Amino acid sequence: MTALSLDALAGDVALAPLHAWLKVKVLELDGTSGSVTVELPFRDEFRRAPDRPEFHGGIISALIDLAGHAVVAAQVGHGVPTIDLRVDYLRMAAGTHLKAVARPVKIGRTIAVIDVQVFDPENRVVAVGRGAFSTRQG
Amino acid sequence: MTALSLDALAGDVALAPLHAWLKVKVLELDGTSGSVTVELPFRDEFRRAPDRPEFHGGIISALIDLAGHAVVAAQVGHGVPTIDLRVDYLRMAAGTHLKAVARPVKIGRTIAVIDVQVFDPENRVVAVGRGAFSTRQG
Amino acid sequence: MTALSLDALAGDVALAPLHAWLKVKVLELDGTSGSVTVELPFRDEFRRAPDRPEFHGGIISALIDLAGHAVVAAQVGHGVPTIDLRVDYLRMAAGTHLKAVARPVKIGRTIAVIDVQVFDPENRVVAVGRGAFSTRQG
Amino acid sequence: MTALSLDALAGDVALAPLHAWLKVKVLELDGTSGSVTVELPFRDEFRRAPDRPEFHGGIISALIDLAGHAVVAAQVGHGVPTIDLRVDYLRMAAGTHLKAVARPVKIGRTIAVIDVQVFDPENRVVAVGRGAFSTRQG
Repeated sequence: MTALSLDALAGDVALAPLHAWLKVKVLELDGTSGSVTVELPFRDEFRRAPDRPEFHGGIISALIDLAGHAVVAAQVGHGVPTIDLRVDYLRMAAGTHLKAVARPVKIGRTIAVIDVQVFDPENRVVAVGRGAFSTRQG
Repeated sequence: MTALSLDALAGDVALAPLHAWLKVKVLELDGTSGSVTVELPFRDEFRRAPDRPEFHGGIISALIDLAGHAVVAAQVGHGVPTIDLRVDYLRMAAGTHLKAVARPVKIGRTIAVIDVQVFDPENRVVAVGRGAFSTRQG
Repeated sequence: MTALSLDALAGDVALAPLHAWLKVKVLELDGTSGSVTVELPFRDEFRRAPDRPEFHGGIISALIDLAGHAVVAAQVGHGVPTIDLRVDYLRMAAGTHLKAVARPVKIGRTIAVIDVQVFDPENRVVAVGRGAFSTRQG
Repeated sequence: MTALSLDALAGDVALAPLHAWLKVKVLELDGTSGSVTVELPFRDEFRRAPDRPEFHGGIISALIDLAGHAVVAAQVGHGVPTIDLRVDYLRMAAGTHLKAVARPVKIGRTIAVIDVQVFDPENRVVAVGRGAFSTRQG
């Protein structure tokens, strides 16, 4: 069981001003596996080029960071600092929205490792991420 | 000598809708070393928490991505896809702006590796990043 | 279908003097998914401490590198340079052997991304790795 | 000032059976900056191919891991677990030996981040690495 419910997690995620601007939405929290699904709707400010419909890679890395963070927050019940983040960009990401699915690889006493896959609307994986997070309070 | 001048690079960076929203500004391009300095002014939407003055880690990773990208674009004269990106967060980042200094580690025929340091207004390194970029056209 | 058969791949892997010293053995090649399983028997030279039964992290990173490399070689039919490698150590790794399971995340025209999980004899994941490899000849 | 002297650090590094097999030698410890220089002599078992004089990438990643580890051990006075490691391979590495220079990016209460450069005998950087290490005892 996770420390936070879906509603509590969604409320927690919504608090961050960046998340409010991004308009990310926590869609699911799997209480058993601990995985979290987050949706990011497209908007013009996310473009990498004025004449291209694709999401900028920097927005994708921000989505991976916050989705990974949400998994750890759901487990430990409070916000946690990201130690490091790694993103592999697999293909250009276009469409009405992106979906990030983040799942715990390890939730340790001091360190959590989280894997994130980012899907486009056609359900292709456009990027994968992995992050190490601190699980200690304070 | 870089393929692009500071003005051409700054114009290129400004074209991306995400960069326009971020209001990033290319401050310097060192024609000899190829390093690029980019400034990101603080704004409320960048916060990680409503009551905290710090930049969200996702904004820092976006800054690292675009600064690394700018180094490669200055060298090869055109936009390039990011292959992968790695970010280490060293301390909370607060203040009126952040400055990213990106420098080439390797500019190869197919792959470039770029190092980025992010400084707060007190000139402390708040994050370091490293990215692999494709240098091929198309 | 992979470009190499299990026998051809195993022969290719055995050629490298480092692999011969490590005594790694390619156990499986899944012709459909492209995943590769490699086994590394323990030996005293792999220890991280004289009085501890655990594998040194450097041996685990070497195992991840060669297993990822084997997946790409099986796909493209020739050796490929590693562009970059990332390893997350999840727990101390002890026992008679380690098993690495490597699977393709992406096999592109220029870049491949490979995920690797390393298991101890009790089938616990002791480390995960991800690497970017060049897929071009020469 | 570092917690360990050069002699104490060299003795500590020599204890690991893997290091003894590799025959790595700690050449320098800068008491002010905390950077550590380690040398790895070439030997046939390190080859990536029987007919090529180059070091296998797995040996280079092991060298980066142990050099980064040595920087942290010198600071905190005891062995520390590697959390994660990232290696970028810049060029083929051949020659009579490799030299790794590792320096602290951050030494925190729970996390250290270390940068490593690996040089060939002609003083070209053949690989760069970055690792996160735990700095807590036990």
